[in-house]
Amino acid sequence: MPSVTVDGKRLWERLMLLSRHGARTDGGVDRQALSDAEIAARAELAGWARAAGLSPFTDHAANLFLRLEGTEPGLPPVLAGSHIDSQPTGGKFDGALGVLAALEAVESIKAAGPTPRRSIEVVAWMNEEGSRFAPGMMGSAVYSGARKLSDIMQVTDPGGKRAGEEIARVLKADRDIPKRPLGRPATAYIEIHIEQGPILEREGKTIGIVTGIQGKRTFRVTVTGEENHAGTSPRAARKDALAAAVAIIKALQDAFWDKDDIIRFTIGRMIVEPNAPSVVPAKAEFSIDLRHPEAEELCRLGDLIEPLAQANRGPCDVGVRQLLHDPPLTFPVEIRDMLSAVAAKMGYSAMPIASGAGHDARYLHYFCPTGMIFAPCEAGISHHPAESIAPSDATAATNVLAEALLRLASSL
Amino acid sequence: MPSVTVDGKRLWERLMLLSRHGARTDGGVDRQALSDAEIAARAELAGWARAAGLSPFTDHAANLFLRLEGTEPGLPPVLAGSHIDSQPTGGKFDGALGVLAALEAVESIKAAGPTPRRSIEVVAWMNEEGSRFAPGMMGSAVYSGARKLSDIMQVTDPGGKRAGEEIARVLKADRDIPKRPLGRPATAYIEIHIEQGPILEREGKTIGIVTGIQGKRTFRVTVTGEENHAGTSPRAARKDALAAAVAIIKALQDAFWDKDDIIRFTIGRMIVEPNAPSVVPAKAEFSIDLRHPEAEELCRLGDLIEPLAQANRGPCDVGVRQLLHDPPLTFPVEIRDMLSAVAAKMGYSAMPIASGAGHDARYLHYFCPTGMIFAPCEAGISHHPAESIAPSDATAATNVLAEALLRLASSL
Repeated sequence: MPSVTVDGKRLWERLMLLSRHGARTDGGVDRQALSDAEIAARAELAGWARAAGLSPFTDHAANLFLRLEGTEPGLPPVLAGSHIDSQPTGGKFDGALGVLAALEAVESIKAAGPTPRRSIEVVAWMNEEGSRFAPGMMGSAVYSGARKLSDIMQVTDPGGKRAGEEIARVLKADRDIPKRPLGRPATAYIEIHIEQGPILEREGKTIGIVTGIQGKRTFRVTVTGEENHAGTSPRAARKDALAAAVAIIKALQDAFWDKDDIIRFTIGRMIVEPNAPSVVPAKAEFSIDLRHPEAEELCRLGDLIEPLAQANRGPCDVGVRQLLHDPPLTFPVEIRDMLSAVAAKMGYSAMPIASGAGHDARYLHYFCPTGMIFAPCEAGISHHPAESIAPSDATAATNVLAEALLRLASSL
Repeated sequence: MPSVTVDGKRLWERLMLLSRHGARTDGGVDRQALSDAEIAARAELAGWARAAGLSPFTDHAANLFLRLEGTEPGLPPVLAGSHIDSQPTGGKFDGALGVLAALEAVESIKAAGPTPRRSIEVVAWMNEEGSRFAPGMMGSAVYSGARKLSDIMQVTDPGGKRAGEEIARVLKADRDIPKRPLGRPATAYIEIHIEQGPILEREGKTIGIVTGIQGKRTFRVTVTGEENHAGTSPRAARKDALAAAVAIIKALQDAFWDKDDIIRFTIGRMIVEPNAPSVVPAKAEFSIDLRHPEAEELCRLGDLIEPLAQANRGPCDVGVRQLLHDPPLTFPVEIRDMLSAVAAKMGYSAMPIASGAGHDARYLHYFCPTGMIFAPCEAGISHHPAESIAPSDATAATNVLAEALLRLASSL
C-alpha cells in the first residue's frame, strides 16, 4: 500500500490566504455564495490547482472541481471537498478547511507518486450555507439529483437577485474552466469539516469519524393579525400578530423541552410588520429549525407544530409551511471503518461522532459511498468570526484524508 | 354673539384633493414628514389660504401657519390645526381633517364677517407621526418649548437623512412664505382629530369633547445572547436572545393583563440578529409602548419592566432604556365646557371622551389653554388605508370648531 504525508504549513498558509476573500474587520469571513468574494476565492483555488498539475472544471451549478487524472481516467473519480461560501458572520474554517484539506491531500498524493488508478477530484460545492440563497447545499443537491437545476435557478436572494443570474455571472468570471455535466458518477466522497460542537475538544480526540447526520425539518410560520393603534385599541379588540407569535413560540418551547437535551429547536428568524413601535403588529413570520437523530421522533415532534400553532394563535390566523424534511442518515460502515483504520495506523486518537449540522455529504450519501471526518474546533464555536482550530488538528485530519483518498483511488 | 356655518362640501373636496399628495394605490395615504409629497401638500394649502385672504407663515421647525389677521393684530392669536404628515400605511383623515377643518372654519369666519378681534391661525405642525423621524410631534414640541430645535435637527431617518437637512429643503421649496420666530404666544389652541377608536360610533355621538390624553412611556429592550449553530449547540449551552426576549415578553404580558382592559401594552417592533433560520439569535431588540390614563399607575407599571426583564433574561444580558415618559394630562375645564356648550347650542349629540393616542395638543396644553374635538371614524380604524369618516361628521365637528374659534377670537 502506498503512503503519503501532507504539508501542514502549506495547508495553513492557504487557509489564511483564502480567508482574505470576504475578510471581515473582526477576523471573520463574510463570503456569500456567488459573490465577488467567492469569485476571487475560486480564481485563487484554480490557480493553486493548476500550479500543482490539477485541472479545474465546473458545471451548470457552478460547483468547482480540481482533478488529478488517474491512470484509468474512465473510472468514476473519488471526490473530496466541502464548500467555500460562508455565513455573513462566519469564520475562516467552516467549509474552507474541507476544500483546502482535499487540495493539500491530492497535491501531496501527486507529489508522492505513483499516480493512482482512479482520478481524484477536489470539489467546492456551490452555496452550502444557504444564507444568501435559501435553503443551502444547493450545489451538492443538484449534482446528486436531489433537486432540479431549474428550481434552484429561480431562488432569489434578499435583494431580489436570482441564483440563476449569479451562477451565470460566476461561470462567466471563471477563466478557462471547462464545464462538464452534472451528476457524473463517483467512486466515493469524503468530506473534512470542523465539528462545530465541543465534543472532540472535551474528549481530547484529534479525529472524529462521523457516524451520520441528524434529521432536520424546517418550517415557516406566518401569523396574520390586524394593524391597529397602540394607544387607542383595547387588548380585547386587538389581533396582535406578535403577541400570537410569542404564545405559539412559548407553546413550542414547552413541547420541545427534553431533559436529555437531544432535541435541537431554534427560532432563528423573525420578521414583524409594519414593525413600528406604536402600531399593533399585523404580521409576524418566523422560522423553525428542528433536528433530531431519530427518524420517528423527528416526525412526531415536527407534526406537533401545526396543531400547537393553531391552538395558540388567539384571534389571529396562522399558516405553517414545511420547507424541508431531511431524515437522519448513517454513513456506510465500510467508509467509517476505513477512516478509523487509517487514523489508528497513523496514531491519531479518534472517536465516532454524530453530526448535528447538515453538510454537503448529506446529499452525496444518497449518490455514492460517503464519509466525513470532523476536526476539533475551539470551544465548539462556528458560524462566528471567533471560529478557530489548531493547525496540528487540521494537519492530522488532512493526513487521514490523504491516506483514505489514496486507498479509495487505488481500489479495484 | 356672532355665528358662522361652514361649507361641508368644500371641506370634503379639499380632504380629497389633499389626499392625492402621497396617495397609495390602495386608497390610503403615505405622506411622510418633510417628503416631496408633503412639500406639494404645503404648497396646495398655502394656495387655498391665499385665495381666501389668509397669509401663510412658517418657522424654523417648518410648522405652517395660515393667518386671518384680527382687528387687533398685536394680541396673541387663537390657533387651530393638526398635522399633514401620515403613517406609511395611513389614511386620508388622520391629521389632514384637523388642518382642513381649521382652514374651512377660518375661511367661513372671514366670509361671514365681521373680522374678529384676535387673529386666528390655522396650523399644520411638522412631523406628528414620527414614522420617518422618531419620536413624533416634533413641530409642536419645538414650538411649545418642550424640545430644543437643535436636538430635533440631528434626528436621522432610516436612510440616514437628518431632519435638519430636510427642514431646510422644505423651507427652500416654500414660495414666498415668510419665517417667524418659534414660540409666539397664543390665546388658545383647538384641534379636531378623528377618534381613532370605536367609542363615538358605538355610542352614536357626533362630537367627542376630549377630556385629556392618557400617559405614555416607551422603552427599548435589548437582549444580547450569543450566535450559535442551530444543529450542533445543545439547549443548555445556548444564549438564545430570541428565546430570552420571548420569556421577557411573556412575563410582561402576564404582569400587564388587567381585567378592565385599561392598560395599553404593545410590542410593535422587534429586530433579530443575525436573523437567519439556522443560527441561534445573538441579539433581539424590541420596543415597548405602555399607556395608562392614571399617572401613578403608569409609573408603577413602567417601573416593573426593568426588573421583569432582568428576572427573565435566562443566560442572556438585557438592557432596558426608557425613551419617553409623558404623564397623562387633562384639558382645562373652561375649554371643554365651551366646546360642549357650542355643540349643544348647535344641536349635535356630544360626549366626553379620553384620548388614547397622543396629539400635537399634548404639547400645546403646556403652552396655552388647549382643547380637542374628536370626530367619529368608521369601526375605529386609523393608521390604515381603510380609515374613513362620514362627511356629515366632518362638517359637524368643523361647525363646532368655527363657532369656538369665533368665541375665543372675540374674547377680551
